[in-house]
Amino acid sequence: MHRLRFHKGHGTMNDFIMFTDSEGFTIMDPKFIAALTHRRTGIGADGIIRAVRAGVMQEWDGDPDLWFMDYYNADGTVAELCGNGLRVFGIYLMQQQLVSAPDFDVATRAGLKHISVDYDSIAAEIGTAKIFDDPVTITTRDGTWDAVPVELANPHAVVFVDQDQLPELHLDRAPEWKPEDRFPHGANIEFVSIIDDNHLSMRFHERGSGETMSCGTGVVAAASAHRARNGVEGPVHVQVPGGNLRVDFDGNVATLVGQAVITGDGTFWL
Amino acid sequence: MHRLRFHKGHGTMNDFIMFTDSEGFTIMDPKFIAALTHRRTGIGADGIIRAVRAGVMQEWDGDPDLWFMDYYNADGTVAELCGNGLRVFGIYLMQQQLVSAPDFDVATRAGLKHISVDYDSIAAEIGTAKIFDDPVTITTRDGTWDAVPVELANPHAVVFVDQDQLPELHLDRAPEWKPEDRFPHGANIEFVSIIDDNHLSMRFHERGSGETMSCGTGVVAAASAHRARNGVEGPVHVQVPGGNLRVDFDGNVATLVGQAVITGDGTFWL
Repeated sequence: MHRLRFHKGHGTMNDFIMFTDSEGFTIMDPKFIAALTHRRTGIGADGIIRAVRAGVMQEWDGDPDLWFMDYYNADGTVAELCGNGLRVFGIYLMQQQLVSAPDFDVATRAGLKHISVDYDSIAAEIGTAKIFDDPVTITTRDGTWDAVPVELANPHAVVFVDQDQLPELHLDRAPEWKPEDRFPHGANIEFVSIIDDNHLSMRFHERGSGETMSCGTGVVAAASAHRARNGVEGPVHVQVPGGNLRVDFDGNVATLVGQAVITGDGTFWL
Repeated sequence: MHRLRFHKGHGTMNDFIMFTDSEGFTIMDPKFIAALTHRRTGIGADGIIRAVRAGVMQEWDGDPDLWFMDYYNADGTVAELCGNGLRVFGIYLMQQQLVSAPDFDVATRAGLKHISVDYDSIAAEIGTAKIFDDPVTITTRDGTWDAVPVELANPHAVVFVDQDQLPELHLDRAPEWKPEDRFPHGANIEFVSIIDDNHLSMRFHERGSGETMSCGTGVVAAASAHRARNGVEGPVHVQVPGGNLRVDFDGNVATLVGQAVITGDGTFWL
């Protein structure tokens, strides 16, 4: 019987299983990942993050002594980056004493990312959102809107809606878009209402997952689109269903800031 | 920081957190239970079972040396009995060596129950279903049916549907019943198709939970209603979305039989 030691944590209710495998011996079989992330027959999580020495990852050609964030979605597919996952991974590395200072770099499939830990508030560099001018319309049961296409790790579409409309939206079915070929691999749709220049409230429909409590790159995509469209200065505070986050900008480079916690550890009996 | 050591297991995808607290020192606060069972910020489970010496439970006046199954739903409410929970509790007591033989009695809020463990197949005595003759009709988006009201730990209504209809049913909304005052505290609705005398296939809509993968008392309620209505002899095999179960009868006393597994153990960091 194979047994896997793990930790579990979440940031704004986006939850992850983490384990350390310095030398990269574990075979990240999609079936193994799906068994672990199953919420009834496994441990349950939105994704899995393996901490592995960057030097053993063939896809990494930078500093071999960094920790590589080997991230997988719950279904076993590889993802380039997960914003909340990066924050939870940061507090995991600190608590496990795998890094020696609260400011450090980690290697990811989306390149080198800086993390800064201040007790339970974690700032993780996400990167620069690419904002497109071409129009896309999003349709749900509640209406049709013009949306801003944003590329940030995943394809996103940011829809600005009225404040009183946001809680009433029906996101139980996937939104549709036009032109239909705009997102051939699907997109995360962010519904955003502007409270004031520096405060947004939002909800998510993620491809493959449906409505979620939080999506880190979606928060940064929305804050970046808001900033570009409305010429906003300073940090953007964002309320999501799973909690509160902040997006700081250094030029166009966005950093996602907010609470992340480790909720437990355990052994999975495979 | 309070830390709770736990085990987790499931039977036909009905999952439970278990821990041992012989002397009953842990305060089973609904907030504590809800924190543990939360699927993102906690460990996640359909229910929690505390193994506690029967003698320390005020509500128990039988043998004080038995283990009492102190069961709570995920929201912190007390439940009289949970059929799959009883089976998972059985394998937990065996694996933890809290019982010395594979046949033993446990104390529950529904009285003394016998459990028999045969490797990973657990037979748990559920009891006698009370079947009512008064008519009740159940309505979903898909139609209206006459149903058999059954009382077994919880109120149940058993609806017999065609085999090809069962997988097509829309159980995302709660079924309605008439007369409306028949189940003042709600009911679990079981949709059952008869494959042959000794084989059923079924789906569930549980009060407070929506559609579920399995409900142990629901399986026994359906098998009992089928047996009473169609004069069936011998065990009844039941396919549920989460796996396969069998109901054995000794007179009218039903025993639920099927696989149960412990999937892991861990520590919750409160």
